[in-house]
Amino acid sequence: MPRITSVEVVDVRFPTSLTRDGSDAMNKDGDYSAAYVVLHTDDPELTGHGFTFTIGRGNDLCVAAAAQRGRPLVGRDVDVLCADLGGIYRELQSDTQLRWLGPDKGVVHLALAAVMNAVWDLAARRAGKPLWRLLCDMSPEELVDAADLKYLSDVLTRDEAIALLADREAGRGLRIKELEVTGYPCYTTSAGWLGYSDDKLRRLCEEAVASGYKHVKLKVGSSLADDIRRCGIAREVIGSDGHLMIDANQVWDVPEAIEWVKELARFEPLWIEEPTSPDDVLGHAAVRQAVAPIGVATGEHAMNRVLFKQFFQAGAIDFCQLDAARLGSVNEVLAVYLMAAKFGVPVCPHAGGVGLCELVQHLSIFDYVAVSASLENRVTEFVDHLHEHFVDPCIVRDGAYVLPTAPGYSAEMRRPSLATYTFPTGSYWATRDRAEPVA
Amino acid sequence: MPRITSVEVVDVRFPTSLTRDGSDAMNKDGDYSAAYVVLHTDDPELTGHGFTFTIGRGNDLCVAAAAQRGRPLVGRDVDVLCADLGGIYRELQSDTQLRWLGPDKGVVHLALAAVMNAVWDLAARRAGKPLWRLLCDMSPEELVDAADLKYLSDVLTRDEAIALLADREAGRGLRIKELEVTGYPCYTTSAGWLGYSDDKLRRLCEEAVASGYKHVKLKVGSSLADDIRRCGIAREVIGSDGHLMIDANQVWDVPEAIEWVKELARFEPLWIEEPTSPDDVLGHAAVRQAVAPIGVATGEHAMNRVLFKQFFQAGAIDFCQLDAARLGSVNEVLAVYLMAAKFGVPVCPHAGGVGLCELVQHLSIFDYVAVSASLENRVTEFVDHLHEHFVDPCIVRDGAYVLPTAPGYSAEMRRPSLATYTFPTGSYWATRDRAEPVA
Repeated sequence: MPRITSVEVVDVRFPTSLTRDGSDAMNKDGDYSAAYVVLHTDDPELTGHGFTFTIGRGNDLCVAAAAQRGRPLVGRDVDVLCADLGGIYRELQSDTQLRWLGPDKGVVHLALAAVMNAVWDLAARRAGKPLWRLLCDMSPEELVDAADLKYLSDVLTRDEAIALLADREAGRGLRIKELEVTGYPCYTTSAGWLGYSDDKLRRLCEEAVASGYKHVKLKVGSSLADDIRRCGIAREVIGSDGHLMIDANQVWDVPEAIEWVKELARFEPLWIEEPTSPDDVLGHAAVRQAVAPIGVATGEHAMNRVLFKQFFQAGAIDFCQLDAARLGSVNEVLAVYLMAAKFGVPVCPHAGGVGLCELVQHLSIFDYVAVSASLENRVTEFVDHLHEHFVDPCIVRDGAYVLPTAPGYSAEMRRPSLATYTFPTGSYWATRDRAEPVA
Repeated sequence: MPRITSVEVVDVRFPTSLTRDGSDAMNKDGDYSAAYVVLHTDDPELTGHGFTFTIGRGNDLCVAAAAQRGRPLVGRDVDVLCADLGGIYRELQSDTQLRWLGPDKGVVHLALAAVMNAVWDLAARRAGKPLWRLLCDMSPEELVDAADLKYLSDVLTRDEAIALLADREAGRGLRIKELEVTGYPCYTTSAGWLGYSDDKLRRLCEEAVASGYKHVKLKVGSSLADDIRRCGIAREVIGSDGHLMIDANQVWDVPEAIEWVKELARFEPLWIEEPTSPDDVLGHAAVRQAVAPIGVATGEHAMNRVLFKQFFQAGAIDFCQLDAARLGSVNEVLAVYLMAAKFGVPVCPHAGGVGLCELVQHLSIFDYVAVSASLENRVTEFVDHLHEHFVDPCIVRDGAYVLPTAPGYSAEMRRPSLATYTFPTGSYWATRDRAEPVA
């Protein structure tokens, strides 16, 4: 009966702004960062690891919030926790004083994600399974008990959710066997950051095609002339059979989004991602109607299940890009997958950042095995950055995620990486001349 | 040419949970708190004061975030700042690394509100005017330049906003004279906290009527039997001419909200406030349709202008209860007032908490004078708690806010109050046995 003895929270920041990796029309200079949580137990072999992802300044706020969110875990019996993962989620989430700062959004919700991701990692390790398999081994009732269905009963009742999962329970084993052969399909964003030159863009697109990718995503929205030129390069490289996606990272108002995307329609993008404010359900619906057949995708900044509920209700999106470190961990992610399945919207999770690829591979596998039972129009993001800092990095082969086999949520970071990139005391930051004072 | 020399941020917490002031179905034990900002200048007579409001734990997160938000102000020329209050707002807001933690929501947005509230207080003091008069003396173009209209152009263009204000410019002086006589109408929530006994509820309702109030608000949503009994008491005391409002503080799912409110319809409430998740535009629209003619009100937890835009677009609310310390200060509040005027939705600001009454009186007066030019269906919240901690507390007479006359935004707190209630080092907290460790 191991118990949680302490909650360690680390401010980890990578200096990605130096190379403009991750640059887009909104975010020109992010330093990819994680508020990284380790749950220690009195069994030195048993720990839980989780994080939320930020792009630099303010990561300290998430660290401080995660410390507060995680405090009630100290002293808890691990097996009791693991037996009711919905219960501990609801207990942490329902701190009404912290709730006031959201609710279910912003720093306190990112911190809940970090802490509960560590709890799920701990639960999967305790069970000796990768997270996707832990989920696939849960019954429909157990999954629905873990899911956060609060505020969703107007579109999905508990009974409907159980029935949906039960309907697809029979084929789980077959679909696991299938994915063990094929992997889960992914696409690459590594080619298309806005800060890259045309030559680098062309070379990276060529490499992507050579590596087996059928989808390539470009950042757009800073200059229409640049976008036309860059989309032309990408389309030329990937050919008419390849899928081109474009991503504006929220820079446009609704009328501007419609106008701009129509200018790029000749390159036949599969989707326009984040055309406007991530909060604007009705705005996305208007864009979708105006730019069809180009699809509308959003979700990396969609704060919670209530917002996704409305995207589905309003018919506002063609692709749901939930974020494993922004939603309230697996508990809230489950709710979004269930709603997406009910509304028939494919989920193509957001990834990249720090460790998001490591997380979402588990979610996508679980979705295919147990929820949607479909791969149609589904492709999960992959960005080839920063995986070297993880103990169990994701593996991509021929444009597909290889099923992880190690126990846990693949969230553990390497201790030498922490020693180097802890902010501001790690060896990298301590030896740099930092213009920015630390809060 | 005074310059800002430092940004002081204080964690102020009042132990309101001891008396259950402020208790409702969601928030049973809040310690009303403020992340309080003081902008110091090299003129010792000139300071700027602002805050955001929280209910206890996590106030430290807002304090840390406000320190980061405010840092770029140090060294700035006050007159340059005051000449472009839209420019400094956009500069602070557009820190993309902090933006990632929202955008425009949660801790980083609350912190932006605190800092920009202090900037507006500073601007009003520098002009020697109460904030409402500073705003009323601005031209339509100046007001629209200060407003945050990003993501709103599908419902309100800059030209439309200017035309709307220009249309009502002529009568500004007359309306100020009118309010100087009548004050701005308010209602009281002090009577109806959920933690109060029936006897206390009856007595406070009687006192409210005796003090000239025509509106009384009760908290509901914990127990239907209790709600029926308490609404009965309130309706009996205020009579059939009085207005009863009910407030569920987000406890219900949409179907539950509809069912519960119908059970209370016999007491003829003017509005049901926060029937469900504050993020649920389509849910509020469904509730509104189902419970009419009872109105739907929300806004104290509405995170930003994009959410309000959708409440208006969807016809989801009858009353807009914007919050002066949750929206991004006057800049974002202006945008919401402009949209509300265009859509013909009355704004009845949320108040109470710490100092919210002090702030919103300025906004309501400005709305009547320069934006809506109407008092119809408009009544601003008043809660009679914690005003003694402010240097220029609001004054309510015969159920109406008396127009403030002192320069500024009425946001300055008394130094002895800070010395007592600063958390955890102030004299009150330092001498208490605090069960909760400090982050």
